[in-house]
Amino acid sequence: MLTKIGIVGSTGYTGLELVKLLKDRDGLDLFFLGSEQYEGKKYSEVFPQFIGEIENICQKNKLSELEKCDLVFFATPNGIAHKFAPELIEAGVHVIDLSADYRFRNLDIYRRWYGFERQDPKDIESNLDAIYALPEINKKSILETIKKQKEKKRGVLIGNPGCYTTASILALSPLLIDNKHEKFLDLKSIIIDAKSGSSGAGRKAVTEQLFSEVNESISPYKLAGKHRHTPELEMFFSEICEEEIIINFSPHLIPMTRGILVTCYINAEAHSTKSEEDTLRKIIKKFYEDEAEVELLDKGLDPKTLWVSGTNRALIQVEYDTRTSRVIVCCVIDNMIKGAAGQAIRNMELILKSFPN
Amino acid sequence: MLTKIGIVGSTGYTGLELVKLLKDRDGLDLFFLGSEQYEGKKYSEVFPQFIGEIENICQKNKLSELEKCDLVFFATPNGIAHKFAPELIEAGVHVIDLSADYRFRNLDIYRRWYGFERQDPKDIESNLDAIYALPEINKKSILETIKKQKEKKRGVLIGNPGCYTTASILALSPLLIDNKHEKFLDLKSIIIDAKSGSSGAGRKAVTEQLFSEVNESISPYKLAGKHRHTPELEMFFSEICEEEIIINFSPHLIPMTRGILVTCYINAEAHSTKSEEDTLRKIIKKFYEDEAEVELLDKGLDPKTLWVSGTNRALIQVEYDTRTSRVIVCCVIDNMIKGAAGQAIRNMELILKSFPN
Amino acid sequence: MLTKIGIVGSTGYTGLELVKLLKDRDGLDLFFLGSEQYEGKKYSEVFPQFIGEIENICQKNKLSELEKCDLVFFATPNGIAHKFAPELIEAGVHVIDLSADYRFRNLDIYRRWYGFERQDPKDIESNLDAIYALPEINKKSILETIKKQKEKKRGVLIGNPGCYTTASILALSPLLIDNKHEKFLDLKSIIIDAKSGSSGAGRKAVTEQLFSEVNESISPYKLAGKHRHTPELEMFFSEICEEEIIINFSPHLIPMTRGILVTCYINAEAHSTKSEEDTLRKIIKKFYEDEAEVELLDKGLDPKTLWVSGTNRALIQVEYDTRTSRVIVCCVIDNMIKGAAGQAIRNMELILKSFPN
Amino acid sequence: MLTKIGIVGSTGYTGLELVKLLKDRDGLDLFFLGSEQYEGKKYSEVFPQFIGEIENICQKNKLSELEKCDLVFFATPNGIAHKFAPELIEAGVHVIDLSADYRFRNLDIYRRWYGFERQDPKDIESNLDAIYALPEINKKSILETIKKQKEKKRGVLIGNPGCYTTASILALSPLLIDNKHEKFLDLKSIIIDAKSGSSGAGRKAVTEQLFSEVNESISPYKLAGKHRHTPELEMFFSEICEEEIIINFSPHLIPMTRGILVTCYINAEAHSTKSEEDTLRKIIKKFYEDEAEVELLDKGLDPKTLWVSGTNRALIQVEYDTRTSRVIVCCVIDNMIKGAAGQAIRNMELILKSFPN
Repeated sequence: MLTKIGIVGSTGYTGLELVKLLKDRDGLDLFFLGSEQYEGKKYSEVFPQFIGEIENICQKNKLSELEKCDLVFFATPNGIAHKFAPELIEAGVHVIDLSADYRFRNLDIYRRWYGFERQDPKDIESNLDAIYALPEINKKSILETIKKQKEKKRGVLIGNPGCYTTASILALSPLLIDNKHEKFLDLKSIIIDAKSGSSGAGRKAVTEQLFSEVNESISPYKLAGKHRHTPELEMFFSEICEEEIIINFSPHLIPMTRGILVTCYINAEAHSTKSEEDTLRKIIKKFYEDEAEVELLDKGLDPKTLWVSGTNRALIQVEYDTRTSRVIVCCVIDNMIKGAAGQAIRNMELILKSFPN
Repeated sequence: MLTKIGIVGSTGYTGLELVKLLKDRDGLDLFFLGSEQYEGKKYSEVFPQFIGEIENICQKNKLSELEKCDLVFFATPNGIAHKFAPELIEAGVHVIDLSADYRFRNLDIYRRWYGFERQDPKDIESNLDAIYALPEINKKSILETIKKQKEKKRGVLIGNPGCYTTASILALSPLLIDNKHEKFLDLKSIIIDAKSGSSGAGRKAVTEQLFSEVNESISPYKLAGKHRHTPELEMFFSEICEEEIIINFSPHLIPMTRGILVTCYINAEAHSTKSEEDTLRKIIKKFYEDEAEVELLDKGLDPKTLWVSGTNRALIQVEYDTRTSRVIVCCVIDNMIKGAAGQAIRNMELILKSFPN
Repeated sequence: MLTKIGIVGSTGYTGLELVKLLKDRDGLDLFFLGSEQYEGKKYSEVFPQFIGEIENICQKNKLSELEKCDLVFFATPNGIAHKFAPELIEAGVHVIDLSADYRFRNLDIYRRWYGFERQDPKDIESNLDAIYALPEINKKSILETIKKQKEKKRGVLIGNPGCYTTASILALSPLLIDNKHEKFLDLKSIIIDAKSGSSGAGRKAVTEQLFSEVNESISPYKLAGKHRHTPELEMFFSEICEEEIIINFSPHLIPMTRGILVTCYINAEAHSTKSEEDTLRKIIKKFYEDEAEVELLDKGLDPKTLWVSGTNRALIQVEYDTRTSRVIVCCVIDNMIKGAAGQAIRNMELILKSFPN
Repeated sequence: MLTKIGIVGSTGYTGLELVKLLKDRDGLDLFFLGSEQYEGKKYSEVFPQFIGEIENICQKNKLSELEKCDLVFFATPNGIAHKFAPELIEAGVHVIDLSADYRFRNLDIYRRWYGFERQDPKDIESNLDAIYALPEINKKSILETIKKQKEKKRGVLIGNPGCYTTASILALSPLLIDNKHEKFLDLKSIIIDAKSGSSGAGRKAVTEQLFSEVNESISPYKLAGKHRHTPELEMFFSEICEEEIIINFSPHLIPMTRGILVTCYINAEAHSTKSEEDTLRKIIKKFYEDEAEVELLDKGLDPKTLWVSGTNRALIQVEYDTRTSRVIVCCVIDNMIKGAAGQAIRNMELILKSFPN
């Protein structure tokens, strides 16, 4: 029997990407394609590239329809998933939320940065069920959560990491985790200078994202702690470092459709034996040795986002500047795939393996 | 009488830009357009956009021809200018070198980074005549040098700053200079994360600069102290700070033709009265108050390279992150104009004003 | 005394271009910058690139203010200019309309294609005063109109040609006009396959013009006689050919900001002596011999829009395919300059020369 | 047992695309990756995106190695395949040539346009074995050829169509074939105005394909019968029309990496019952009704190359201009996939189905 998939927000760029990646997959039925904006229209009318391939009609978000699914993706603006997820997981439907709704166990942070007050007790409870899931980093906890939810006969609820966050976590986690054993990094010195293509801004019609505004230009935005991926990063890094981490996260808009590069800076003790490029390389290589989709590049190669475009891969490079005692770690991903839809699908696979149809 | 201008390397991107900016200017005669590659061809055959406008034939570099000029620009690879400049300035011809040949008073640094040994005593002497000239920052020294050369009846020899360097110096100099009076900046913490369009790589046919390689991609290169603008920046900053400055300079290639953005990070003392955005803004604003081409953006605005494209302007923004006690200064310029040809022309204007035809 | 300039619609792309081209021009005062959307905001707040350069506040369109100008540009959507122009020219203010309002002497065509009913008798009368003005083609009529209006003590009213239209007219007029003397062209066979950058679509926020939609894509639109430049072209060609001309005009959207290329096809009699490339070249060359801004490229060169980007020039190439007896004429222009603002300024210059301040 | 695949020219863009599409396919072994330029280097060193995925070393082209393959793709410049193919097919190895070597049964045309003299009798004989294979159009002949070769115990030799050719043939064949029954088209009036991304020019380092030359520009090239896809198109169309067809084929370079759009013009008899959009739509729809990868778009939709990017699909639109009695057919494909590697893989599938391992 086919696994019934729902995609709420299927006509945004992330939803579109989910559809592209899932449409030809064996064993799945794209049962529900949600879209408030295009309700009643054929999906292949909104995206004519699917003519002859996808016959769905875009549907309004409706709990009764979503409950018929086995697994529902929310590729929606923030604030939508938490209206449906509590009932869905209670009904045994798995939920993978690509928005920020279930990324924060600490609801104070969520409220402060996203402005939504969670009031429904069920939703607050669901939040405790949720797991922030970046498979390469916390697969063990993900699998435990899946097991726990299975025992409770509830659906699994996954908070899918943000795009910038994914690249940054993949870049820095190996060193930060290693640092716990024998400190050599100055954890106050983290700067993440991030660069993203325009698809990250979504498919809303706004002047600043017009071709003639983005093309032939580069611009920073929300510097100095104003971007919402800052608290997500700080939450995650604080957890793995077991101390409070505050960072500078500086996003930039690049004239390209897809791709994220993060250039991460962190000071290292000059005289630590770990502060050598080869040691740093070993730490990262070891960390990802069982991961098929994350690779450390050979020495001397500079990562390009083009290399991961259209894939679920992350490529990492690390350098150590002996003159300034600074470690520089770069990571490139496809923001729409590894940073959103592709990663969500990896999470789906983890769930479906535990809940075979 | 018209001022006779020579442009050596006139068929590269910087040379082309000089031609574009100078061709319709009153009082000038584009007397010599040099090109080893296209010698004997009409300039308007190499660049058909000038058909009906420019009648020059591309010429081989020849001292006897260059000596007929009043002022010669070198828009050449490194290592060409220093073969001609000594004779030219001796003959009273002004030289503005857009390569790195005359940027370093300290020839050891030049040799170490550029691999050229200067052996001709005349050239070594000329190096002492040369002035590293970024008008907004060191106009006084430039004018003094001009005066001095005039008295010596020698031509003026200008080392025109690099593109990345220009943006970085414009961004950081006001704060670094101010810091001398009452220290509040951690001078060991400077990181310059720089982003440039592809024209900066020049017009040589190399695979990595093909459209299909650059488009839809972003990539860092020469991280961790490997880029040649690093010593240029460190030399300049050490001079204005009056202590040795070592920095991280991280260039990135952006899929656009023109423009440079630098995002500069520097730690500040948390409790200094200067470590407030308004104070930082005042320092920068005051520093550039007499400069028509450098502006601090209003609070809340993020600079875009598109805004300065085709102009000789620099736009700056500064923010202070109270959470991390870090100052972030951004600057955008057109790499081909403010970062090369346009700035060279400002230097030309300073010279020509002192040496009226 | 400075000539007072008004720009209605100054915050669209064409208005912005007019501002850029006029701001540093001697003898002009940018007196009125209109914008319904940004009324009350500083122009340099809407376009921060002008900080320190332009102090104007955006104003609502108001006849009493416009009447204080010497010359007003309308860089507005269709249907605005005809509300103000009648009063303005009566008051002696010159009007250059970059919209379609005054391009059609035949109001039936205007109504059919643009859906506006002209009812105000004054406006209908003004329409008779108006001149469709493409200086390289009909300078004589333009000057006559200027003279006539001067005698009537009325302002001059100019309908500035459309962007696609300009390129197409410049490409085909020399041959079409020559054809009247000794026919060799099949006037029923004209096809204009046109390609334009995204700035032609204006600065309105619409999904189809988002970066991620336009980038890495090319698309035709309004094929088979649906684009509004079709009647404008047919009107013009019918006039110069002195018979009714019907054409295929096929616009395409290209992933670039600026530039238009038209590739024009027209069948020629195989055995005419004119149907030879050299003859065709001579006709075109002779036609533009006195024009500084229109050039026929040397044989064998293919025109590139990049070559005219940022300029008021048009480059033309012609080829004759002996196998198919077909003439192919290409023309490239900068759609925002030669195709809009730059051409309007040429028209302004013609007026101001006749009406010295 | 795995099918052993060889890719000669694996480090060009088409070769790279073949590798990307084949690397994760079940049942295949990427046995031979050829590259004269990078011989001895790891493939993942040339294309670091494959680190951890592809372990091949790039090899020099050597018959003895190629003969160990079951099927060899030639993604090479013209003139390479015909040196190896005769021996390979004799040895029972299938050959799919993506260059022009085996596209022309008539060797005179090949020689005239490509300048190569075929002299080896074996090669001339092989040419007779070859089949020009565009599955959607001539699948029957392809299957017959496969059967014939199988009986002769020889490998199958396929001439894979050019990229522009594929789009043009898919666009026009339905109408041209239908026209044979009841003529309504003027076969002398065919014009194909084609637009391609820069990847079509290959990965050779040439100045004209640098980012700063291609970006923000559009240009025609090889107009008036000079492009080598012209004879390929004329050969094919002449065959299906059963009369000599001469066309205008006009390629243009677009600032994007991937994608081809062809805009095809053909005059139709005004009073034919077929000259109606609905009839034309029916003809095309019927023609492709069994093809999964070619679709006629719904009325009113304009095709975008973005819609087919990364896919093996072709999207077609047809319009009829009643004013000019002209049919306009557009077709979009991904030039690297449907126009090269993807189509070659479809041909591979047809062969492998008949020769199960």
